[in-house]
Amino acid sequence: MKLPDTLRWDGQRLALLDQRKLPHDVHYLTINTLDEAWHAIQSLAVRGAPAIGIAAAYALAQSMREVPSDAFAAELVRNAAYLKTARPTAVNLAWSADRLVSSGQDYDRLIAEAIAIHSEDIEICRSLGEQGAGLIEEGANVLTHCNAGSLAVSGQGTATAPLYHRHAQGAQLHVYVDETRPLYQGARLTAWELDRVGIDVTLICDNMAATLMAQNKIDVVIVGTDRVTANGDVVNKIGTLGLAVLCKHYDIPFYVACPSTTYDRDTPTGQDVTIEERAADEVRQDHAAPVAVYNPAFDVTPNQLVTGIITEVGIAGSAAELAELLG
Amino acid sequence: MKLPDTLRWDGQRLALLDQRKLPHDVHYLTINTLDEAWHAIQSLAVRGAPAIGIAAAYALAQSMREVPSDAFAAELVRNAAYLKTARPTAVNLAWSADRLVSSGQDYDRLIAEAIAIHSEDIEICRSLGEQGAGLIEEGANVLTHCNAGSLAVSGQGTATAPLYHRHAQGAQLHVYVDETRPLYQGARLTAWELDRVGIDVTLICDNMAATLMAQNKIDVVIVGTDRVTANGDVVNKIGTLGLAVLCKHYDIPFYVACPSTTYDRDTPTGQDVTIEERAADEVRQDHAAPVAVYNPAFDVTPNQLVTGIITEVGIAGSAAELAELLG
Repeated sequence: MKLPDTLRWDGQRLALLDQRKLPHDVHYLTINTLDEAWHAIQSLAVRGAPAIGIAAAYALAQSMREVPSDAFAAELVRNAAYLKTARPTAVNLAWSADRLVSSGQDYDRLIAEAIAIHSEDIEICRSLGEQGAGLIEEGANVLTHCNAGSLAVSGQGTATAPLYHRHAQGAQLHVYVDETRPLYQGARLTAWELDRVGIDVTLICDNMAATLMAQNKIDVVIVGTDRVTANGDVVNKIGTLGLAVLCKHYDIPFYVACPSTTYDRDTPTGQDVTIEERAADEVRQDHAAPVAVYNPAFDVTPNQLVTGIITEVGIAGSAAELAELLG
Repeated sequence: MKLPDTLRWDGQRLALLDQRKLPHDVHYLTINTLDEAWHAIQSLAVRGAPAIGIAAAYALAQSMREVPSDAFAAELVRNAAYLKTARPTAVNLAWSADRLVSSGQDYDRLIAEAIAIHSEDIEICRSLGEQGAGLIEEGANVLTHCNAGSLAVSGQGTATAPLYHRHAQGAQLHVYVDETRPLYQGARLTAWELDRVGIDVTLICDNMAATLMAQNKIDVVIVGTDRVTANGDVVNKIGTLGLAVLCKHYDIPFYVACPSTTYDRDTPTGQDVTIEERAADEVRQDHAAPVAVYNPAFDVTPNQLVTGIITEVGIAGSAAELAELLG
């Protein structure tokens, strides 16, 4: 079965697959205003660093359609600045908005740029899958966290691209998916999209990864990333750091899928990244006692814990190699 | 505020605080039959190794009230064997049932034995709290997992006993509580009971522990256990092993509170313990994609990852010390 598009552009309006409703409903959210785009990004109707970047590009371009040319430059800067505040951590959001700001001063040029960002992303994922496919042996058991899948991006996803590539080659593989508290992106999205194309999936709670590793049931861990900094630190969904520490202890390779658009050469280390803290109720839901909550959306995995960073142009074993590959 | 009793014996009937309804409802479940006790244990209305042992003792004794003396011995063995099947991993269940079987052959003797098990447990927790209190410095940040609290036991709990002891001494402490997927015992029970007595609590998702440790925000981890085997391996709620590995990586002391009743000298290692796998729907709930689930209720932490085992008679740094302390 084919995966639904993460987002669609019909020439007039952006529509986003509302990921908050998956896996139960496949529903597209039509974006009419920049404000609607801001809320869709902020509330995770669209999520995943590359998908946010693409959605932001279309939404920003769309918001400029009726702006008169004498007000165009100032309004574009203003709209871009506003959109960037929806998610402070995802580097693609800022990157994409900035790219549109510097791409041109008329509506048609902005739309062309958004379409280019989108199609480049599909091609990047395809190449990333080719690069990473060699890490997955026939019969391998792979663990992944959160959703760095097709839904987070636009084509084959990032962390999932090597999986889709190997699956398309006819390889047998088995993927353990961390449910990924508090928002269950693994349980809702990754498990759903892998299962939909026929890959063998087992869902686990985040705290079960250690016991699988202790039983030699995990051959390789592949995760996505929201931002890789200049020193090769990996900012990714909360829970990634713990997996990386476990991999070190159990001597399991830990790979990060990072398209060039997610590489942030201007930020020296992961410690320099603002980590978004989200609402307590995401953790409490209906069941918890009404106590204080700490709910960071991301964590920082130091580069020393990373076996390799998979990009669309090769796999980097160090920060220096990554800079060279993407330089 | 005082904690409610985990269980009550009114001289006729056992009543269990229904922990499935916490923290929203404080509701007692009256146990009329052995079958009701079996289902209460199996469905986690009562949970925590010592509390299960106490509940089993009362329930087993109660089930024998009207059994004629010529059928007493055989019926007691049969009822004990049945009750033990409710949870295969908790050693206290078998220990408690066996203790009643060998304690006597009339109803009054069984009731006296159940009451003795209950009051011994309260005293064990008090002593364990005294022994462990020295591990918690003024102003310490403690992390715990699942509920090895008052609710899991009968008095001050096991992992929580040192916390209640230090709190009663007027010490400032701050406890991070893992929510403990899939059943949220940390979020629902531990956070609730600590908060209720005025201890400063912050709830986190299980996958957030690593980031707290990386930020030097955890001084010590204390967890309970369902069974410590002869070699000092620790069988405890799923997620414990991952915490122990993180503690080793971040050089944080990792302690296990183990009353003597939870020490299983007859089982050589943690690998010899049957790990209960529970239903997929506990993980899936309403949100997940309908894929396969792996849902082990416990994991095994090798003794090498354990800094010390806190018992009611002292803290053991090794399996040999533990055997000597509890010998």
